[in-house]
Amino acid sequence: MRVPFAEVQRVLKEALMRRGCPEDVAEQTAREMTNNSLEGVYTHGINRFYSLIKGIDGGFINVHGRPVLVERFAAVERYDGQMGLGVPNALFCLDRALELAREYGIGLVALRNTNHWMRGATYGLRACEQGMAAICWTNTVPNMPTWGAVDPRLGNNPITLAFPRPQGHVVVDVAMTQFSYGALELAKLEARQLPMPGGYDEQGELTTDPVQLMRTLRLLPMGYWKGAALSIILDVFAAALSDGNSAGEISKKFNNNFGVSQVFIAIDVARLVSPERAAEIADQVVEDVLGSQPVEEGGRVVYPGQRRLEVRAENLKLGIPVNERVWSKILSLGEGGA
Amino acid sequence: MRVPFAEVQRVLKEALMRRGCPEDVAEQTAREMTNNSLEGVYTHGINRFYSLIKGIDGGFINVHGRPVLVERFAAVERYDGQMGLGVPNALFCLDRALELAREYGIGLVALRNTNHWMRGATYGLRACEQGMAAICWTNTVPNMPTWGAVDPRLGNNPITLAFPRPQGHVVVDVAMTQFSYGALELAKLEARQLPMPGGYDEQGELTTDPVQLMRTLRLLPMGYWKGAALSIILDVFAAALSDGNSAGEISKKFNNNFGVSQVFIAIDVARLVSPERAAEIADQVVEDVLGSQPVEEGGRVVYPGQRRLEVRAENLKLGIPVNERVWSKILSLGEGGA
Repeated sequence: MRVPFAEVQRVLKEALMRRGCPEDVAEQTAREMTNNSLEGVYTHGINRFYSLIKGIDGGFINVHGRPVLVERFAAVERYDGQMGLGVPNALFCLDRALELAREYGIGLVALRNTNHWMRGATYGLRACEQGMAAICWTNTVPNMPTWGAVDPRLGNNPITLAFPRPQGHVVVDVAMTQFSYGALELAKLEARQLPMPGGYDEQGELTTDPVQLMRTLRLLPMGYWKGAALSIILDVFAAALSDGNSAGEISKKFNNNFGVSQVFIAIDVARLVSPERAAEIADQVVEDVLGSQPVEEGGRVVYPGQRRLEVRAENLKLGIPVNERVWSKILSLGEGGA
Repeated sequence: MRVPFAEVQRVLKEALMRRGCPEDVAEQTAREMTNNSLEGVYTHGINRFYSLIKGIDGGFINVHGRPVLVERFAAVERYDGQMGLGVPNALFCLDRALELAREYGIGLVALRNTNHWMRGATYGLRACEQGMAAICWTNTVPNMPTWGAVDPRLGNNPITLAFPRPQGHVVVDVAMTQFSYGALELAKLEARQLPMPGGYDEQGELTTDPVQLMRTLRLLPMGYWKGAALSIILDVFAAALSDGNSAGEISKKFNNNFGVSQVFIAIDVARLVSPERAAEIADQVVEDVLGSQPVEEGGRVVYPGQRRLEVRAENLKLGIPVNERVWSKILSLGEGGA
């Protein structure tokens, strides 16, 4: 079934407000999660909403928690997220990084004790809408082993890099596993296999089965040793710069994806090069990529960020596709049950 | 054969000075390239020296080129590298980023019209030696197709992320191909296959043969579509922030790895968290990773940056392993021939 944007957003917002969320953070959370589904990132939109509510009901997420400043020095700031809602916390810190960038050319905000920010690209794109470039990442609860190991001690620590481009922002949002946990959940929900092996099953064999992978959590890092190394360094940066929880500490304290650490870097492109020239160069790169010869005749090559615009246009017109089981669970939340 | 550090450095420096390099940049280039071999990164040390000299002799590298300031605003600066030697140019810009970070907490320097910086970790580690964290990357001449394409239009655009840790810095240095061009060169030199497929041969089949891959340049991106997307966004950032060449422009202008664009971001960790606490958190992450259960009994798990310290210690004691053919070519350079 398909549901219009405004309807989805209203239902999510009401469910949050019934749980005591102040209206502004309920609004932000509902808007961004609806937008994630609108742009085709179903795993971090509507499909994730029920588990967000469980996090609130379970007392892990404090709907009244707001970022509190801990340290400040010129272009860098550090906040404590007070275990508040992940989306509003991250929006606040990204906005602070943007303000710092406006003042200094570049700004960095580190955030600890926050919760799942849902979709990294939300923050990269928000920067782009203001003509800024951004690099933001979060750590997560451990969900993959390091290279050469069997027990999951690394987070998949998604990172977003985004550069503004009037004709369509260039935005990357990748987890350090070959397949994000959200991608596994979606494949499971749709009862399909992954397009290539995502990790090891209980027998230690490579598998494309999302159910097996969610059980073993022996996920392959993106690029094998490279994704493992990147996960580790992103965790060190996020936890140490914020004085927050590392992946290992998240596991010990919550055994779930709460109390994470994040970094937001914003760059005011116009302080280095004119927006026209920056757009021209970004266009050059994009057009060069789009001019590639596809592997299969009639095949398609895209630039990072292109598909979201297409899906967005379609879903705006037709409504957001929602899984009926997921949607009826969410509707029951709105009616007060949980 | 093995050659002591001081001897290698002296030979490289002399060869550079015979080509008119001013002593300071000859010294820096020789020192860092020798150090790369010392720390086991042979691909970006002695083994790359002959092609560096060819770049000078061919007029692509201007040994008198030095970075010239183009734009400056608070914590961000932009330089033109004047097609100078890549290592001294990158050291200069990293040092500027460190100074900006000292003043503002974070600093960014973009550099255009520069040349191969050799090993990314050189710059990450240099930041760490001053208690700073760093994120630096470079674009390169195209050497892999984007995802779903056959013609190489993306650079492998290596990035380094480094975080200071008194017990051993955590440093990652990865190219966006599954195997760096240097790794292919080394496998070719040692006449061995890659441990897993690195791309496609002329028949469009996956292959582990470095010679085939150097011919087709149909290299697999790290993590398939993920590495391709990261390559594109890193290129956009580097070219647009520096107003320099994108991978495509490098190809058009030089058809080789010259005139590249780079970004250097430094973060003064101590402005956000005490060095003691930062080290404690970094230790926590590292120890957690090292406590992993290896896949094979007696197997070994390492943190990013660990091996270089071990190789360094061994090579300092025994001398740097050099390929005799490579070394004799370099010695002949020192004697004036080319």
